Amino acid sequence: MAEKAVTAPFDGAFIQNVPAADANTVEKALATAYGLYRDRSSWIPKHKRLEILRKTAEIIKERREDLALQAAREGGKPLPDSLVEIDRAADGVENCIEVIRAEGGNVIPMGVNAASVGRMAFTQFEPIGVVVAVSAFNHPFNLIVHQVAPAVATGCPVIVKPAEATPISCFNFVDILREAGLPEEWCQVVVPENREISTSLVTDARVAFFSFIGSGKVGWSLRSQLAPGARCALEHGGAAPVIYAKDADMAASLPLLAKGGLYHAGQVCVSVQRVFADATVAGDLADGLAELALKMKVGDPTLPDTEVGPIIKKSEADRIEEWIKEAVDGGAKLVCGGERLSDSLIQPTILLNPPPDVRVSQMEIFGPVICVYSYDNMDDALAQANSLPVAFQAAVFTQNLDTALYAYKHLDGTAIMVNDHTAFRVDWMPFAGARQSGHGVGGIPFTIHEMQTEKMMVMRSSAI
Amino acid sequence: MAEKAVTAPFDGAFIQNVPAADANTVEKALATAYGLYRDRSSWIPKHKRLEILRKTAEIIKERREDLALQAAREGGKPLPDSLVEIDRAADGVENCIEVIRAEGGNVIPMGVNAASVGRMAFTQFEPIGVVVAVSAFNHPFNLIVHQVAPAVATGCPVIVKPAEATPISCFNFVDILREAGLPEEWCQVVVPENREISTSLVTDARVAFFSFIGSGKVGWSLRSQLAPGARCALEHGGAAPVIYAKDADMAASLPLLAKGGLYHAGQVCVSVQRVFADATVAGDLADGLAELALKMKVGDPTLPDTEVGPIIKKSEADRIEEWIKEAVDGGAKLVCGGERLSDSLIQPTILLNPPPDVRVSQMEIFGPVICVYSYDNMDDALAQANSLPVAFQAAVFTQNLDTALYAYKHLDGTAIMVNDHTAFRVDWMPFAGARQSGHGVGGIPFTIHEMQTEKMMVMRSSAI
Amino acid sequence: MAEKAVTAPFDGAFIQNVPAADANTVEKALATAYGLYRDRSSWIPKHKRLEILRKTAEIIKERREDLALQAAREGGKPLPDSLVEIDRAADGVENCIEVIRAEGGNVIPMGVNAASVGRMAFTQFEPIGVVVAVSAFNHPFNLIVHQVAPAVATGCPVIVKPAEATPISCFNFVDILREAGLPEEWCQVVVPENREISTSLVTDARVAFFSFIGSGKVGWSLRSQLAPGARCALEHGGAAPVIYAKDADMAASLPLLAKGGLYHAGQVCVSVQRVFADATVAGDLADGLAELALKMKVGDPTLPDTEVGPIIKKSEADRIEEWIKEAVDGGAKLVCGGERLSDSLIQPTILLNPPPDVRVSQMEIFGPVICVYSYDNMDDALAQANSLPVAFQAAVFTQNLDTALYAYKHLDGTAIMVNDHTAFRVDWMPFAGARQSGHGVGGIPFTIHEMQTEKMMVMRSSAI
Amino acid sequence: MAEKAVTAPFDGAFIQNVPAADANTVEKALATAYGLYRDRSSWIPKHKRLEILRKTAEIIKERREDLALQAAREGGKPLPDSLVEIDRAADGVENCIEVIRAEGGNVIPMGVNAASVGRMAFTQFEPIGVVVAVSAFNHPFNLIVHQVAPAVATGCPVIVKPAEATPISCFNFVDILREAGLPEEWCQVVVPENREISTSLVTDARVAFFSFIGSGKVGWSLRSQLAPGARCALEHGGAAPVIYAKDADMAASLPLLAKGGLYHAGQVCVSVQRVFADATVAGDLADGLAELALKMKVGDPTLPDTEVGPIIKKSEADRIEEWIKEAVDGGAKLVCGGERLSDSLIQPTILLNPPPDVRVSQMEIFGPVICVYSYDNMDDALAQANSLPVAFQAAVFTQNLDTALYAYKHLDGTAIMVNDHTAFRVDWMPFAGARQSGHGVGGIPFTIHEMQTEKMMVMRSSAI
Repeated sequence: MAEKAVTAPFDGAFIQNVPAADANTVEKALATAYGLYRDRSSWIPKHKRLEILRKTAEIIKERREDLALQAAREGGKPLPDSLVEIDRAADGVENCIEVIRAEGGNVIPMGVNAASVGRMAFTQFEPIGVVVAVSAFNHPFNLIVHQVAPAVATGCPVIVKPAEATPISCFNFVDILREAGLPEEWCQVVVPENREISTSLVTDARVAFFSFIGSGKVGWSLRSQLAPGARCALEHGGAAPVIYAKDADMAASLPLLAKGGLYHAGQVCVSVQRVFADATVAGDLADGLAELALKMKVGDPTLPDTEVGPIIKKSEADRIEEWIKEAVDGGAKLVCGGERLSDSLIQPTILLNPPPDVRVSQMEIFGPVICVYSYDNMDDALAQANSLPVAFQAAVFTQNLDTALYAYKHLDGTAIMVNDHTAFRVDWMPFAGARQSGHGVGGIPFTIHEMQTEKMMVMRSSAI
Repeated sequence: MAEKAVTAPFDGAFIQNVPAADANTVEKALATAYGLYRDRSSWIPKHKRLEILRKTAEIIKERREDLALQAAREGGKPLPDSLVEIDRAADGVENCIEVIRAEGGNVIPMGVNAASVGRMAFTQFEPIGVVVAVSAFNHPFNLIVHQVAPAVATGCPVIVKPAEATPISCFNFVDILREAGLPEEWCQVVVPENREISTSLVTDARVAFFSFIGSGKVGWSLRSQLAPGARCALEHGGAAPVIYAKDADMAASLPLLAKGGLYHAGQVCVSVQRVFADATVAGDLADGLAELALKMKVGDPTLPDTEVGPIIKKSEADRIEEWIKEAVDGGAKLVCGGERLSDSLIQPTILLNPPPDVRVSQMEIFGPVICVYSYDNMDDALAQANSLPVAFQAAVFTQNLDTALYAYKHLDGTAIMVNDHTAFRVDWMPFAGARQSGHGVGGIPFTIHEMQTEKMMVMRSSAI
Repeated sequence: MAEKAVTAPFDGAFIQNVPAADANTVEKALATAYGLYRDRSSWIPKHKRLEILRKTAEIIKERREDLALQAAREGGKPLPDSLVEIDRAADGVENCIEVIRAEGGNVIPMGVNAASVGRMAFTQFEPIGVVVAVSAFNHPFNLIVHQVAPAVATGCPVIVKPAEATPISCFNFVDILREAGLPEEWCQVVVPENREISTSLVTDARVAFFSFIGSGKVGWSLRSQLAPGARCALEHGGAAPVIYAKDADMAASLPLLAKGGLYHAGQVCVSVQRVFADATVAGDLADGLAELALKMKVGDPTLPDTEVGPIIKKSEADRIEEWIKEAVDGGAKLVCGGERLSDSLIQPTILLNPPPDVRVSQMEIFGPVICVYSYDNMDDALAQANSLPVAFQAAVFTQNLDTALYAYKHLDGTAIMVNDHTAFRVDWMPFAGARQSGHGVGGIPFTIHEMQTEKMMVMRSSAI
Repeated sequence: MAEKAVTAPFDGAFIQNVPAADANTVEKALATAYGLYRDRSSWIPKHKRLEILRKTAEIIKERREDLALQAAREGGKPLPDSLVEIDRAADGVENCIEVIRAEGGNVIPMGVNAASVGRMAFTQFEPIGVVVAVSAFNHPFNLIVHQVAPAVATGCPVIVKPAEATPISCFNFVDILREAGLPEEWCQVVVPENREISTSLVTDARVAFFSFIGSGKVGWSLRSQLAPGARCALEHGGAAPVIYAKDADMAASLPLLAKGGLYHAGQVCVSVQRVFADATVAGDLADGLAELALKMKVGDPTLPDTEVGPIIKKSEADRIEEWIKEAVDGGAKLVCGGERLSDSLIQPTILLNPPPDVRVSQMEIFGPVICVYSYDNMDDALAQANSLPVAFQAAVFTQNLDTALYAYKHLDGTAIMVNDHTAFRVDWMPFAGARQSGHGVGGIPFTIHEMQTEKMMVMRSSAI
């Protein structure tokens, strides 16, 4: 079997090979998964699935350090943040259990008009069918959990394709599932040899649900190629805006914004990217962020005190460097950073007032860059914040209640943080890109909902 | 049959007689209601009940002016506010329809452990049984709607005892129900000749649900006398506190507080009574309230421009006068008002810094009196606000988000308004006295919930 | 402006012309709708929208006879059923009001782990954006209500394209909306000159939500052409299966099945099409259905006693005739019907045991045809029922509880009726095609949900 | 300090002493608990409470055998069933965690009429205050969990009074809570020296919520003595009825009914007591039950193969013996059992057709006795089943769907099992006595709900 090499983004060191899937392998995976789905007698009872997930959570907790170190090495997210990721992953698995135990269906009122007399109706949940999950590199363990654990919980056979850069965490999770009792065929990992095979996997008519985390361009293109009947969840990025009012508490907000924008070198889909600050404080804010950015330890993600690690691959680091340069050439003030420390490392960067038409103002940077834009009028800032075709999480910093509510109301997005950064997330909250930022609603309970169909029973009887 | 005379609180004018119920009449009412409940074949189907309520809402809307004028005359609430009351009542009836149409029961998850395998379970709602509703005078039409319309909606036979002072609005509503198609026996009005008969009604073993709006003393005493098996909802009052921070917007808040405290001469169970204001603004606040109070038109509630009407009866006006005097004697500054304009009218009154141990600081005034207490430290104010055994609605005025949240967190109560007065209410929101202020949760959807039992069906089958 | 002629399917009589939209008109409609959406200051407040809908429901009720007659004439559904349709439409508008009044958002728990301490979070609903609704002919008034009223309720600007055959009912509804106070630009009707213009409307980047009722082939194809970021709801058909056990109550079930299969000449997406009956009763069942079918009055849909009206157009009637012939040629027993009475009328038809590979066994007939298949083994029948790529509503007839539950569990579909026909629907219940039968969940409350985004506010504060 | 001796009901053997609480001790407990509640700064954060409960569940699982043996010894429930009890208890603790994590409050819709414009409103949950829990002997560990764990979960200080007969399991659970990190003062166990002290504890004005499991007579009496403002949950018993239709599957139902009626010697509040069987099968049913009853191993509850253990005390066994005698003297056929094997052991007993006026037909037997009543007409049987002032869980056995629905509809009760015994319970389902059988709704999620108040925040702002 062909193999693919996994290397560390920090220094390019070889980590290990993983098996690559050819067309045949993918076909077999689909046939297996679909066969399971269409044969109810093979289904794993709900309480058994919950036992498997309980055991899964336990094992993750036991191996948290190893899993975190491994994720940090292949994915480049610094170890302390990778430990958080593993803890969240265990919690996410437990959340799956909780949701399945709590939500059993709904009662539909009957008898409330003449047409519905003599009936009672309720629903139960059923697995939607074969799930194909295509994942991203930036949270290599927890994203897999978000896409795969709900499938296990709901009883969907799942085929998962990890990011090419970070397959090992995926294999690790799936191995744990199997160790916890999940029969192999219920969760299959494939790393297709090429994009053509990937696409054939995703667009196969046997796929009921396609879960995708990655670039919007790829995601929406795949949506358009899905087979009739296939549903999808897409989670892309944005260029998360922050409204920073002049009455905001700067001391409290600086570390939040710095973390929210530079954490994992900004490779987070809701990373703080565009901070619109009142003109009276914009300069101070940029300077304050720079001060924190300069203190951040940049380097090897497997070390316990690294705060900013590598960019996932050289071409991406090249791109980020180029965008920064474009912004500075266009008139942005480089308050700090901008330097390329190595093939993979970029110094955390604070830009003041990049022009509106450069890429860093228009598109997701996905790098360790925060742009501060000075505004005179909050409505203008809100209009600028809302001017992109993407909209995901956003934030407002202010001490004033009306200002907070005003920004909440007027900012596009699905989650508006008040006095917190845009990358705030807990795994049970809804997490949904609006407009081109995504499709469907992520977050464990919501993914579980999307991976189920609700099947109603309407009983008609003269006895009712 | 004995009768009781209804008179106008404003001037004591005779309005009309209503029939008084002796022990025999009450016994018949109970026997009728219980007989209906125990005979399922007599139950009115849900969709018929909804039709009756639809028609009821229509008739109320058609007669709003008449109903409002009548309510204003017997209850003393000024006409503009009585019109609002009638509109709310019609809306409340519609809300009953909405809730019945929307809520049909719940599914209970099964199959999530070994003990629950092979089962499906769901609930449906059933009427709880005979409802006895004892009502208050201060919203003579809408309170009846709140207690009676949910009973009709849920299919409970209901016996309603209006306040002695304001039975006509009750009869009006019940007449409308009957005109709309409700068979007479499903909603019976009784005005017992004396308290002994009232008590025997409330404490009868055939009563499944006792709904009471009135004084806490009476309510809790009746609770202790209920028959085994009877449930109850009690809605008493409080002495609603407001925290007024120094950064509050005074221009915006003055009319809200004046309305919230003096509306219906303060005869509202969540009326603004105790305003704890930062010492730097307390004086200005009291003066500002006084200015508005002095402008209010006090007088005949049936006139379209009256803002403050009569106290419901002379003895109550005497009591209020006495409490004001006690406070002033104890050191409170009488900023405005305090005068007795007639047997029934009291000038709207603003007191500054009544001592903590006088009755106006300790008990519900239920009169046109707002007390402003100056504070140096908000925590002390919060402690004082929370120091009574009652807790219902409360409020905080501030422009600062943290202050708002802090007050929300620390104020006792079930509803904390931010930059609004304590008497804010819409009829679908939960409305519940905490501690001694009440029992159960009022508000149309919640009362409907309380007047139903949830009946579960668990199907066990090898086929599941 | 170009126009399109609307004619009666029964006899081809000209009814009236409606304006046809060219590319320019469609572009203007999109620009208008998108402009409204992007300018929050133009949004109609929620309570105003509810007032408009209240008035709309009233007007519909006032004009029910006219609206029904008009719908019957252009759409061919017999008058009695068209009256039911108008009543349901009015009820659906009221349901919109109810849902908006009842559902305001959700609270997301915070403080339940270290990462969520110091926060409170809740959501509010916002309109998703521009809705484009493409509708079908078979319920020309109520389908429009299902697609348009939720848009009005949620505050989405909507552009609606009625079925070419039945635009008048759509114009009627939209006229009522406007009469009730909806500004014209919030709901625009377009009847594009050709399919190219239609497609450009649907796939425009300004469209946030595409609602489609019609053929699966067209629907899924349009899904694949949607702009990035656009969501969709598709409602197609199926070939609804019924499991008929030997212990079913034949006297009770015959009229239900006959109605469910032949109502509106079977032009209903959940029409009873494939009845799998136990071999011991299949013949009697087919004979019983034939007896009822033969009694049905076939003819002019505008007459008050017509039970089965015309097929929507000649080419469709030709197709149905051909499918029947194919089945009979293939070995099906023609128990009754099969005759072409006119260009538009087909005699209600009962077929016994069509072979599995003919079109009537494989695809949606959308005509007045019920197929009865005899089975020896219920599992085989279930497998056959589930063998198509479509799955919507289904039914089981039996007196046995275990059999009912077994069929409920094993039948594919989103709603399984017990002792009722597959076309049972009330407008507030979920109505969703599974697999290729649709996308998203229809039914007023669910469409309202889909036309909104949920916007979360996360407040972070040291005061929490 | 005074002590109370705990002895084994099986043979009266001394087990251990537990400390008895005098008036002083109870006063201190109340003062401590109330002090905690009124001092928000002492509250344990939600996520800490969840950690404590997680650890608690773990410890219970580790010690299940010991805990079960101990519970079996003091309470008399046979070991296999006691093991089930401990497992359920651990699961119940986990359910507490789940509920707290899933339910954070509710959003109340605003802006839906003119009065609510410019506002947003949502609720959060708060602990209701001091909980006093008085428990029963029959599930000595799990009932404590049901009453105490929700208090811990919600943050209510709790004082628990175990049944006099079975305090050790309570101490065991509370010790585990403390070992898991709960500060002692948050959960205090008291075994009052006498009933007067108990009553003073329950009726103290500092008690916010009184949770009681035990006899209806005591419960309702205590309800009438509660302080104003105190809420309560009462869980009493019934005399659970079963409707057994002639088409029921006897082979399948016999073991269920035998278990449901004789399990724990019938000392279960929803034990199968009154089986109304169609006259054609009543005799066979009674004989079949007798056959199973005679095979049951009666004896020492700590042995692994005991199926029926002792009655909790001699006086209760005397009472049961007397009721059986009364029934037989009155004409009941003693199909099997009725013998007193020792002071504590009674042979499982099946009675056929006891007269309707004997105690076993009128009151809860709480002993190993099943009565079978032959009926000719199901409506008569339903009327008899519903004739008592108690109503809790009930059941129907039939293969016919209409019969099942008919019985579900007509049986009084809050849970009607179809083809399962009346004692079916899982800990997350609602468990509520209707009428005199109880007050409030038990079951972990519901108790959590009752131990919280919902506190609404209404934000009014021009920015909304």
